[in-house]
Amino acid sequence: MLKVAICGGSGYAGSELLRLLSLHREVKITAVTSERSSGSRVVEVFPHLRGLVDLGFEPLVPEVIVGKADLFFLALPHAASQEAVSYFHSAKKHVIDLSADFRLKDPAVYEEWYGVRHEYPSVLKKAVYGLPELHRRKIRRARVVANPGCYPTGALLGLYPALKEGLIDQDSIIIDSKSGTSGAGRKASVPLSFCEVNEAFRAYGIATHRHTPEIEQELSMIRGSRVRVDFTPHLLPVNRGILTTIYCRLKESGLETGRLLECYRDTYRKEPFVRVYGEDVLPDVRNVRGTNFCDIGVRVNRRTGGLIVVTAIDNLLKGASGQAIQNMNIMMGFKETEGLDLFAPLP
Amino acid sequence: MLKVAICGGSGYAGSELLRLLSLHREVKITAVTSERSSGSRVVEVFPHLRGLVDLGFEPLVPEVIVGKADLFFLALPHAASQEAVSYFHSAKKHVIDLSADFRLKDPAVYEEWYGVRHEYPSVLKKAVYGLPELHRRKIRRARVVANPGCYPTGALLGLYPALKEGLIDQDSIIIDSKSGTSGAGRKASVPLSFCEVNEAFRAYGIATHRHTPEIEQELSMIRGSRVRVDFTPHLLPVNRGILTTIYCRLKESGLETGRLLECYRDTYRKEPFVRVYGEDVLPDVRNVRGTNFCDIGVRVNRRTGGLIVVTAIDNLLKGASGQAIQNMNIMMGFKETEGLDLFAPLP
Amino acid sequence: MLKVAICGGSGYAGSELLRLLSLHREVKITAVTSERSSGSRVVEVFPHLRGLVDLGFEPLVPEVIVGKADLFFLALPHAASQEAVSYFHSAKKHVIDLSADFRLKDPAVYEEWYGVRHEYPSVLKKAVYGLPELHRRKIRRARVVANPGCYPTGALLGLYPALKEGLIDQDSIIIDSKSGTSGAGRKASVPLSFCEVNEAFRAYGIATHRHTPEIEQELSMIRGSRVRVDFTPHLLPVNRGILTTIYCRLKESGLETGRLLECYRDTYRKEPFVRVYGEDVLPDVRNVRGTNFCDIGVRVNRRTGGLIVVTAIDNLLKGASGQAIQNMNIMMGFKETEGLDLFAPLP
Amino acid sequence: MLKVAICGGSGYAGSELLRLLSLHREVKITAVTSERSSGSRVVEVFPHLRGLVDLGFEPLVPEVIVGKADLFFLALPHAASQEAVSYFHSAKKHVIDLSADFRLKDPAVYEEWYGVRHEYPSVLKKAVYGLPELHRRKIRRARVVANPGCYPTGALLGLYPALKEGLIDQDSIIIDSKSGTSGAGRKASVPLSFCEVNEAFRAYGIATHRHTPEIEQELSMIRGSRVRVDFTPHLLPVNRGILTTIYCRLKESGLETGRLLECYRDTYRKEPFVRVYGEDVLPDVRNVRGTNFCDIGVRVNRRTGGLIVVTAIDNLLKGASGQAIQNMNIMMGFKETEGLDLFAPLP
Repeated sequence: MLKVAICGGSGYAGSELLRLLSLHREVKITAVTSERSSGSRVVEVFPHLRGLVDLGFEPLVPEVIVGKADLFFLALPHAASQEAVSYFHSAKKHVIDLSADFRLKDPAVYEEWYGVRHEYPSVLKKAVYGLPELHRRKIRRARVVANPGCYPTGALLGLYPALKEGLIDQDSIIIDSKSGTSGAGRKASVPLSFCEVNEAFRAYGIATHRHTPEIEQELSMIRGSRVRVDFTPHLLPVNRGILTTIYCRLKESGLETGRLLECYRDTYRKEPFVRVYGEDVLPDVRNVRGTNFCDIGVRVNRRTGGLIVVTAIDNLLKGASGQAIQNMNIMMGFKETEGLDLFAPLP
Repeated sequence: MLKVAICGGSGYAGSELLRLLSLHREVKITAVTSERSSGSRVVEVFPHLRGLVDLGFEPLVPEVIVGKADLFFLALPHAASQEAVSYFHSAKKHVIDLSADFRLKDPAVYEEWYGVRHEYPSVLKKAVYGLPELHRRKIRRARVVANPGCYPTGALLGLYPALKEGLIDQDSIIIDSKSGTSGAGRKASVPLSFCEVNEAFRAYGIATHRHTPEIEQELSMIRGSRVRVDFTPHLLPVNRGILTTIYCRLKESGLETGRLLECYRDTYRKEPFVRVYGEDVLPDVRNVRGTNFCDIGVRVNRRTGGLIVVTAIDNLLKGASGQAIQNMNIMMGFKETEGLDLFAPLP
Repeated sequence: MLKVAICGGSGYAGSELLRLLSLHREVKITAVTSERSSGSRVVEVFPHLRGLVDLGFEPLVPEVIVGKADLFFLALPHAASQEAVSYFHSAKKHVIDLSADFRLKDPAVYEEWYGVRHEYPSVLKKAVYGLPELHRRKIRRARVVANPGCYPTGALLGLYPALKEGLIDQDSIIIDSKSGTSGAGRKASVPLSFCEVNEAFRAYGIATHRHTPEIEQELSMIRGSRVRVDFTPHLLPVNRGILTTIYCRLKESGLETGRLLECYRDTYRKEPFVRVYGEDVLPDVRNVRGTNFCDIGVRVNRRTGGLIVVTAIDNLLKGASGQAIQNMNIMMGFKETEGLDLFAPLP
Repeated sequence: MLKVAICGGSGYAGSELLRLLSLHREVKITAVTSERSSGSRVVEVFPHLRGLVDLGFEPLVPEVIVGKADLFFLALPHAASQEAVSYFHSAKKHVIDLSADFRLKDPAVYEEWYGVRHEYPSVLKKAVYGLPELHRRKIRRARVVANPGCYPTGALLGLYPALKEGLIDQDSIIIDSKSGTSGAGRKASVPLSFCEVNEAFRAYGIATHRHTPEIEQELSMIRGSRVRVDFTPHLLPVNRGILTTIYCRLKESGLETGRLLECYRDTYRKEPFVRVYGEDVLPDVRNVRGTNFCDIGVRVNRRTGGLIVVTAIDNLLKGASGQAIQNMNIMMGFKETEGLDLFAPLP
């Protein structure tokens, strides 16, 4: 049994890590930290885990916790993660970081978008961007994995096949995403209170959202040249799920939906967590709720020459904790789907 | 035009007072206070009031505001209201207080349930409990009206006809209420955040909710002897509305639903804001959303001799701001329905 | 008092017409039809209208109803409306048609997208597209107004200022809309049942939605040359509201958000139902719920040269019944805002 | 591997049986029937099961299907189940019936409440009421299990300990239940459409709901004498979950919450699917969503001598398909929690 610890376990990503790792057959959770809930039992904060998790929250003291586990999941706020990742890394531990601190390869870009300096550029250099469908080989050998953001996961998986094959104009990409409210975290805030989100729908962070450079970095890497995108997130009155609608121009006229579907199916043929839909049905966030799937639908608009791709993920699973566990499974040589054999409990 | 001021205008009751009073033909809002939003324009906090309200929030300084209006609506936290009510009252102003501070006639009961002393028992003595269906005559002459709590409004209107007529056993009353989340106010709080309320449903404050003594005071007054009730509130994942299901035993066996309906219809025949339903349909909070109505359904269970009464109100209208305006209309001799000619915008 | 009749009054647009017209000071509803509810009282189908509407549903027999009113609102299914509109028109009545039957100027385009022939091309020629912000003058003299679709209303008001001023590349327009479920009508259907929509979110009708030609017709008219768009609707788990996010390329680089806002404010300066937001806040469907407003937000993405416009309307008001009443007010010379002085009852 | 078949697999209970049984380590689904979806692949109707279920729906022809499996789950409409159960039973198969047809021991009571005769009284006599916490021993030897209704499950588990111990007045029981909308099934219906349920809340079937005799039968059995209850169900705008609030009078004054909790904990000490909460927190339907748990909270109201019990279950799991699988596990000697080791994916 691999011993794992969770740093930052009282948020939504943390509670899902607690739940899923407790049911995982190859690991044992040995510690969980939380600043705000330190001193409480996990089940006091999360009564739904009664009967499953018998741990208490402790404060994050790296020197104390480092000896307790072999692999560390970090679900800490951005910037706060830098030091902890580096500490565990230097102690020869495996680290999977759910924050943004090790996702952007260029420290200058990180500083521009997050407003803080990166203090550990050498660790950053070794960190692997943990999107298995793009980087599985590197993840296998990685000691530090930067778990992708929720929006980038849905956007990148929707663009990768068409962009890789050179089917689309890379200057035409528009990404319109709609996220369930758990994406904003578990926190006290008037704008996130029930009455402000329920029966409401709005865009936010237009042209300024921090996931933009992350999306552009990976698209540029796929394409081999600089890609820029328009990215607009919206807040959806559902607990979980991100639906991303992507628009771009096809380079060649005359390409049909069927041809594009072929490209997508070929690309993802062996992927355990990508499901490419046919022409009869479109993805819905409900179909991936509670699962690690990314569902993809593809349509060509013959009248305009536009390609429209729709992807659906659960922001807490494939968009956070599920992908983190998938990364762990790859890093440690476990079966990739272990602990993630999950299907949506509909409705 | 009557000049009115709103103290505590940045919560949900306050925003409804702003909206409804701005559309009221007999009044003009001259000031609105808010501690947390002081210095902001109303439309910065409430963009939905753009084009309607052109005021800024000011801090509550009684000496400053007292000269600006003839009637004051107070939507302040419990305990905070005592002093302000008394101040405006001593300045010969009309006051409608939406807090609980002047609802309980017995200062000892107030202290027991709210944990603070009542410092103004002489003002308390003059305050009228503002449920028009029970106390319209007194409200007409009142200078201080204690606007009823949201739960008591639905419970009392549901019990009044049967209790007044002596049809039910007064020791058998059980009140099971379910309230929309706006009843908890506009505030930053993890348990009230979207993801904690959506797709959730729970009871709270069993046997300890502060609206209990208010319900019991009025039922005892109706009956002329002490009445005690079991009252359980629940938190409903809707923005607005309280549905209250009331259970009690009929004194006489053989009474049918039709006979009870007659009693309810007789009692409320002239009430502009009570709608008694027939045997074909039951109240739903959606039918009263955005309105000042209390809808009532009545059923007798022949098998058990039980009477079940269901009432629906909008907690922010008949349960707060709407009733406050109804009280103002009565106090000032306006048409009772002025500004409240509202029907639910379904769906 | 103008006598008005509603044909097709048992759907959501119909129930809103019933509610709003009953509160309108210049008109009296004299008849309301419904095939499925014929023979029932309105309040049996819509208990929320108890105390407001005292009418029964009758079947639609044009010969019978034509004498009862001066102006007819038609909320009938597409194709079913053609004959009724023409009948009332030939009887010299005013007609406001909420269906799509008289929106598309070219009968061939109508036939292509709706699959039925247009049997009344001469009436079609006289019909005015009832978007007051574009066609107020014509509406004033019209006898037949084709009330716009809900999606086109939000899309057109969002594009009109920038397109008219020639600020954007007309080949770059992408319209991503998200609509509340009442847009699908009041009907029995598994995919529209609560458990299939709640906690769900999906796109539908990609590249094939029937509102596409309507949007393109009006944009082409504004521009004076053929415009084509990519339009994708999504189903939002809220009762009401459409948020439309529009993407297009600015022709000139260097234009800033402020400059665009100026253009939008200038265009809509005198419009009673358009509210252009500033740089601090973005539209939300909740702010227009139950109102006839179209709220607009504008942002320039300096990094990409993209313009992003967000509009919010209530699909049943500005997107249907509210706009129909606005059109009636204009046609009949009433105050344009009569019966529509509505602000969102938040939350 | 036990071969199992599901009759009536295109509803919500059916889709959950498909999902959970596919992940169960001791069984293999060999057939699934549906009248309305016959001829379709399961994944066409339920895209969320893509990658898990590779079966097609067939029509229910008992003679054809009987040979395909050893155990049959029947999720058919009431009355339709009688014949199928009897057929499979006579073919020596194990049967778990999710309908009401074999729950009521007295055929006259069945006829009174369901309006149809029971044609198989001899099979009825052998059927065991499948609430494991009350009847585990009998279930072990049963060939036909009548799986309990969703409301009775929550009501009975909440009353059993106190009633069995004689702590409460059996004539004082009031059961106020609130159910998520999936309890009404997967069907096309205006009253169940999204816009009619969302932001709504109503009671239904007051004093007439068909689960009443089922609750009374089992309570009478526990108590050894006839028990009658007032039972009121309500429709909750959530997908899943039933919260039941039970009111009754304690026989002895002076009993405290702690004493009652002891009684409940003792009773359920060894139950794998009952969780008794302490005095700090109350059950919430969200904590049991997607699980087979029944969570229970208990409070004594000292002022009135009332006992209030709150229970929460997932109506599709412990209230239907989960309990059916639990019953199968008991009948077949599998580990009772196999396939049901599920914790709520919050939020």
